[in-house]
Amino acid sequence: MQMNISARNALKGKVVNVNVGVVNTEVVIELPGGDNIVSVISKESASKLGLVPGKPCYAVIKASHVMVAVD
Amino acid sequence: MQMNISARNALKGKVVNVNVGVVNTEVVIELPGGDNIVSVISKESASKLGLVPGKPCYAVIKASHVMVAVD
Amino acid sequence: MQMNISARNALKGKVVNVNVGVVNTEVVIELPGGDNIVSVISKESASKLGLVPGKPCYAVIKASHVMVAVD
Amino acid sequence: MQMNISARNALKGKVVNVNVGVVNTEVVIELPGGDNIVSVISKESASKLGLVPGKPCYAVIKASHVMVAVD
Amino acid sequence: MQMNISARNALKGKVVNVNVGVVNTEVVIELPGGDNIVSVISKESASKLGLVPGKPCYAVIKASHVMVAVD
Amino acid sequence: MQMNISARNALKGKVVNVNVGVVNTEVVIELPGGDNIVSVISKESASKLGLVPGKPCYAVIKASHVMVAVD
Repeated sequence: MQMNISARNALKGKVVNVNVGVVNTEVVIELPGGDNIVSVISKESASKLGLVPGKPCYAVIKASHVMVAVD
Repeated sequence: MQMNISARNALKGKVVNVNVGVVNTEVVIELPGGDNIVSVISKESASKLGLVPGKPCYAVIKASHVMVAVD
Repeated sequence: MQMNISARNALKGKVVNVNVGVVNTEVVIELPGGDNIVSVISKESASKLGLVPGKPCYAVIKASHVMVAVD
Repeated sequence: MQMNISARNALKGKVVNVNVGVVNTEVVIELPGGDNIVSVISKESASKLGLVPGKPCYAVIKASHVMVAVD
Repeated sequence: MQMNISARNALKGKVVNVNVGVVNTEVVIELPGGDNIVSVISKESASKLGLVPGKPCYAVIKASHVMVAVD
Repeated sequence: MQMNISARNALKGKVVNVNVGVVNTEVVIELPGGDNIVSVISKESASKLGLVPGKPCYAVIKASHVMVAVD
């Protein structure tokens, strides 16, 4: 289902790896700058969205779930 | 306190905006590729870390808090 | 931006109350069955989505953020 | 242990499906209006609470973990 | 409402500080060993639970929201 | 990578149990007062940090992920 979501962060990238577990699936997304973002979502969601290496996608993160660190 | 944390995602960037509330503070971080990441942390943390525009920092996100979306 | 998201839960309802803070905004959503769901999102997101009482919307929740309780 | 919790959302329903993994278990809860809510909790919690299809339960969600979306 | 919740962590302590914002309230809980835990919950929840300094309470945390760090 | 993080809570303890799944690993941390904290992190993070029983570590939790309960 297509929708506009309140999550402040939607970083465009592409899937580079998928590791399927019993309940959850780990998806690695490469951003254009070369950084990777790792996501753990349910196996069913990963399957429904057709997440396979090479597929363009977004890493979506609610602002209250982002921490900040300094050296 | 310096530590190595289990969070899979630590994206390097710099602070570009800080909006201070009563309990929480919103911090906007610019990544090298030009993307912005918005974070909401407690006001005290933002103050302790000395987050002001221009300061280098990391956006840190636990993998289980990252969703994936497709067009 | 329209997208299909991995979050397993998207409950259809309508906005019945909005309480705006400095950084965050609290949005109350009424489900068809009469239950209310309370959401806290950033003030800017609430504003961008045009969330005002009466507006149809979805409460979206990642499955790993839902707990279960029994009496 | 019985307690009153700060989480703003406790939606009454009943378990309709349980999928057990190595670490986590996925629990599907049906609300009276017919909507389903999917939860991923630890296997041990699901076991301790005796979550089996048909059991009355609540889906409990902290307000800051609820996003809002519009069409 | 009294309930048994799936969250794996419920640390017993007492409220030692409360800082009220527009939408959220910050609650500081002291554990018996002397450690403090900081919680940010909605203002309404803090009010409903009657959280004032000295009140016995629990810090409740879903296991998937706990990270691990090493020196 | 060593860093100072915005998460308000870093409770010192030691690993007492590790349960490895396909995607996630459950880590049990004992605090000095005798309380246990359960964490679910990705298998790769647990491996990288060398989390084995007896290892000193911190349970790190963002304040907005801590709920409060009363009897």
